[in-house]
Amino acid sequence: MADVDSPIEAARGAIGVTTGPIRGSRKIHVAVPGNPKVQVAMRAIDLEPGCGEPPLNVYDTSGPYTDPTVRIDINAGLAPLRREWIMARGDVEAYDAREIRPEDNGQLGPDRSGGVQPFPNVVKRPLRAKPGANVSQMHYARRGIITPEMEYVATRENLGREMLREYHRDGESFGAAIPDYVTPEFVRDEVARGRAIIPNNINHPESEPMAIGRNFLVKINANIGNSAVASNVATEVDKLVWSIRWGADTVMDLSTGRNIHDTREWIIRNSPVPIGTVPIYQALEKVGGIAEDLTWEIFRDTLIEQAEQGVDYFTIHAGVRLPYVPLTAKRVTGIVSRGGSIMAKWCLAHHKESFLYERFDEITEIMKSYDIAYSLGDGLRPGSIADANDEAQFAELYTLGELTKRAWAQDVQVMIEGPGHVPMHKIKENMDKQLEACGEAPFYTLGPLTTDIAPGYDHITSGIGAAMIGWYGTAMLCYVTPKEHLGLPDRDDVKVGVVTYKLAAHAADLAKGHPAAKMRDDALSRARFEFRWRDQFNLSLDPDTAEKYHDQTLPAEGAKTAHFCSMCGPKFCSMKITQEVRDFARLQNQGSEGFIATEEAEAGMAKMSNVYEETGRELYMGAGDREHN
Amino acid sequence: MADVDSPIEAARGAIGVTTGPIRGSRKIHVAVPGNPKVQVAMRAIDLEPGCGEPPLNVYDTSGPYTDPTVRIDINAGLAPLRREWIMARGDVEAYDAREIRPEDNGQLGPDRSGGVQPFPNVVKRPLRAKPGANVSQMHYARRGIITPEMEYVATRENLGREMLREYHRDGESFGAAIPDYVTPEFVRDEVARGRAIIPNNINHPESEPMAIGRNFLVKINANIGNSAVASNVATEVDKLVWSIRWGADTVMDLSTGRNIHDTREWIIRNSPVPIGTVPIYQALEKVGGIAEDLTWEIFRDTLIEQAEQGVDYFTIHAGVRLPYVPLTAKRVTGIVSRGGSIMAKWCLAHHKESFLYERFDEITEIMKSYDIAYSLGDGLRPGSIADANDEAQFAELYTLGELTKRAWAQDVQVMIEGPGHVPMHKIKENMDKQLEACGEAPFYTLGPLTTDIAPGYDHITSGIGAAMIGWYGTAMLCYVTPKEHLGLPDRDDVKVGVVTYKLAAHAADLAKGHPAAKMRDDALSRARFEFRWRDQFNLSLDPDTAEKYHDQTLPAEGAKTAHFCSMCGPKFCSMKITQEVRDFARLQNQGSEGFIATEEAEAGMAKMSNVYEETGRELYMGAGDREHN
Repeated sequence: MADVDSPIEAARGAIGVTTGPIRGSRKIHVAVPGNPKVQVAMRAIDLEPGCGEPPLNVYDTSGPYTDPTVRIDINAGLAPLRREWIMARGDVEAYDAREIRPEDNGQLGPDRSGGVQPFPNVVKRPLRAKPGANVSQMHYARRGIITPEMEYVATRENLGREMLREYHRDGESFGAAIPDYVTPEFVRDEVARGRAIIPNNINHPESEPMAIGRNFLVKINANIGNSAVASNVATEVDKLVWSIRWGADTVMDLSTGRNIHDTREWIIRNSPVPIGTVPIYQALEKVGGIAEDLTWEIFRDTLIEQAEQGVDYFTIHAGVRLPYVPLTAKRVTGIVSRGGSIMAKWCLAHHKESFLYERFDEITEIMKSYDIAYSLGDGLRPGSIADANDEAQFAELYTLGELTKRAWAQDVQVMIEGPGHVPMHKIKENMDKQLEACGEAPFYTLGPLTTDIAPGYDHITSGIGAAMIGWYGTAMLCYVTPKEHLGLPDRDDVKVGVVTYKLAAHAADLAKGHPAAKMRDDALSRARFEFRWRDQFNLSLDPDTAEKYHDQTLPAEGAKTAHFCSMCGPKFCSMKITQEVRDFARLQNQGSEGFIATEEAEAGMAKMSNVYEETGRELYMGAGDREHN
Repeated sequence: MADVDSPIEAARGAIGVTTGPIRGSRKIHVAVPGNPKVQVAMRAIDLEPGCGEPPLNVYDTSGPYTDPTVRIDINAGLAPLRREWIMARGDVEAYDAREIRPEDNGQLGPDRSGGVQPFPNVVKRPLRAKPGANVSQMHYARRGIITPEMEYVATRENLGREMLREYHRDGESFGAAIPDYVTPEFVRDEVARGRAIIPNNINHPESEPMAIGRNFLVKINANIGNSAVASNVATEVDKLVWSIRWGADTVMDLSTGRNIHDTREWIIRNSPVPIGTVPIYQALEKVGGIAEDLTWEIFRDTLIEQAEQGVDYFTIHAGVRLPYVPLTAKRVTGIVSRGGSIMAKWCLAHHKESFLYERFDEITEIMKSYDIAYSLGDGLRPGSIADANDEAQFAELYTLGELTKRAWAQDVQVMIEGPGHVPMHKIKENMDKQLEACGEAPFYTLGPLTTDIAPGYDHITSGIGAAMIGWYGTAMLCYVTPKEHLGLPDRDDVKVGVVTYKLAAHAADLAKGHPAAKMRDDALSRARFEFRWRDQFNLSLDPDTAEKYHDQTLPAEGAKTAHFCSMCGPKFCSMKITQEVRDFARLQNQGSEGFIATEEAEAGMAKMSNVYEETGRELYMGAGDREHN
């Protein structure tokens, strides 16, 4: 794997990324039933030959980077997987791209130094909808059209679900409608009614279609992006590839400062996952950071600029209305959303209603010409436990609900961003209000953080809230890294944040009773119970770390096949006792049910005693869960 | 701090521990109202002089190790804080200790090599209750006696709660009865009715009294202990001091293999927190690891041995009854509790009911002579998501409820151990059944882990479940480290496990609406909002890590006082905008409430516009939550 070299190369200014299969698994492509031209990427985890279990297929966000048969060239970008599908619909036209200006890369900003090399392979003639056309997946869905994107999603979400013949539901889904089996028609219907979105700009054909919705697997987003203070394009592309390797379903480029345009081009051209941005950040750079100098024209121009590059969803803080701004005056932490504070500042400076709110339908016109999804930003979200669920937050939420309906009126896809800091007892109210206010549009939440007292561990304070709100119905969880509130995440922080959120999303899927979720837990538990250490590592979210931790106590290769663990040592193993229990329960004819220590049972046990003396005594025993007592 | 040297010293075989104040705070002692001889240790965090806020007092488990005025000598042990209180009650007698035998240190075990030096300062004449006496805190409580231990707990739990004049409750406590202010009488009443325990063996006078109960702050336990495979006494004492430094309220010594007796002596003599053990582990060593060779006599002798050393609570797996064992036969992971599997093995081998169950009242006789609390073990807890909430688990739980009442009949304190692996939707059922079956005896849960697929991150998969079950009513959370299922935790793992569980316990206190909990979140949020970086670090659970992470992006000392953060850089800061909002809301006479963009408002705003042009324009702005968009 280039993994090890990557940081060094990045330091040199070259762009090195991590490639090669994830340990213990291989890339596979599953054909869509009835449409073999659409091949869905997955990851197959092979188990020990002896165990008699089939390979486990898991959801794979890592794209071609983990496919040894694909040659990766960051300077060329990824292959345009979806281009044929897009062109085949005959509703788009190529046109001369808007010209790139110095201010697109922040040259009006305070720092005029530096600059990254432009992406060598820029598309000069991007696509847009033909006059009068609407190229959004929602528009197709509402006209009854099942697109290849929808077919891809259906196969991708099913994983090995057809293996679950005798699966019976076990979960509490709080009103979600998760099907036993996902059909392309189900995907179409969910997109048509706005309960799910498939964010994929027609100018980002490199992306592998994925769905964000309460009735699909819970997704996670990773934030990257350079800032005025630190980082460069090489490390950002490396972080992109690194974050999708570990499971990021979408990535947001939150770059600020200079080189915003070029950095984004490098990221999109090399991304197999949807890319989201907050256009107001770049618009602000274009006016030298003076919020009150922002104008609709500059903002609109920025939307076109990013639409042509292929951004898949835009965070638009159109719910930060002038009347709501003073509602934050009594807060402990005021307005902590960057986009929210920019718009609040603009509203105060001009004492006018937000141009994002007033021009919303014009923005929607642009969205539908490129199939960009809205991520309606929660600019007034609470920045502390003290401010959670307050008047300002919910006033904005209900406005987002109103805007959702306006976007849907033009068949444009929408998701809603959710709160940052919320104590556990106030989390469900957020989910319930969002479902009611926004007509079941997908909820996309940050955390939420369940306490403010653990900076340095906010991936965990927020992972707790993320798992809970994911269970309640959130469709996508925006990750938080250990550096939250303290600094910019490095690639180690990105990995910890992604894996933490992946496990939170999975815990949510389990609790919702998602048919495909429990298969992996059960496979890993069987491997653990049978001391198939390799399988246990390979089935985990992070095989590298699992094996490393194991080896810190028991380095020997033999220990990986040993029938004991370091918690108990070679002498003890509770797994052993269970085999004895099973033999006992079997031999004693009535099986485990209805076993009571009755007279009859006593008799049966006396008989068993001899059997045991002969067979069982030499079996050593103990416990595999040593730290648990 | 000796911190840095400690591991080296430990490697040398010497016993080095981390001493010195926790960064940014100082040890204080608060006198119990009306009983100034009882001085309760706390930690005071001083804030920046300019901010006009008083120091924040926080709960402190670290004992004398963080008190610069105390000279620490591991070879001498800690001062016997409680000895006077114990003697003053006049119901104990000193007697000649049971003689130490080779098998006490596992010399009958497989490995006869090695050995640690015995603790130099062993008490030759331990204490026990005089004939006919009962020295349990529950016994005193039921006779209406308020002990110094109860007074200590009351002051310790209140923290700065008297500061909360205008505090109004905000939380969902699921039927807990948390008072606004904790009085010694409240503590007595909770202990009397069995809803809380104060575990403190009369032979462990070094311990600082603490309470475990649903109506007190949620506590956490850290497990340490050497094993047949790894570690030595120096590292275990170091781990003890290290774990309480970061917040462990109790510590369990789960040592196995050789040197069990001597290791435990070193740990207890140097521990200011209650120490728990699983006596069956040592009893098993005494019979060479052959479970079926265990006898009541050997087990009873082990209880006396450990009682005389001062163990504060015993995990007793008396609920693993013969009839329940076959109920585990169909499980994916069978029996994963070590103590549970030992007893299951014994029951199968002899086809007899467990001697722990049959001799329970005799065990209770011993407990009340030393004031040792029961931690009734969940030997049949699930070891995987697949086995959660099954028949075997709940059959045992109801038996633990029956045993609780038998222990209470002799005024012996009890807590109940809870499950290890449970998906989120099945967690609350565990809490509800425990409250009902065990008459509100404190619940002491491991995790629970909410998914099985993240070995290497099980402190997080379990931290999620821990926060939730703590909210629902669990009194103490047993930590899980990143090494769970993979290896033995080193001191870094111990710290991560403790801090993770500390934040989970705090999130639970917040959600329950505990009056003392939110003060710290609010203080930290104000510090964050006002860019008091030092205060933000010092108020956090782990100031060292918070500052380290901050410095990785902005090392300069100046950056710690700068009014911006690395997420946004010097140009942007959303905190700034809020001051403008406040000025605006103030100047505009109607304040934030009732502000609507009406004609009148528009007029007022027009007037404001000029004010703003003069005052506000030069204020730069942006957002402090850059990673959040």
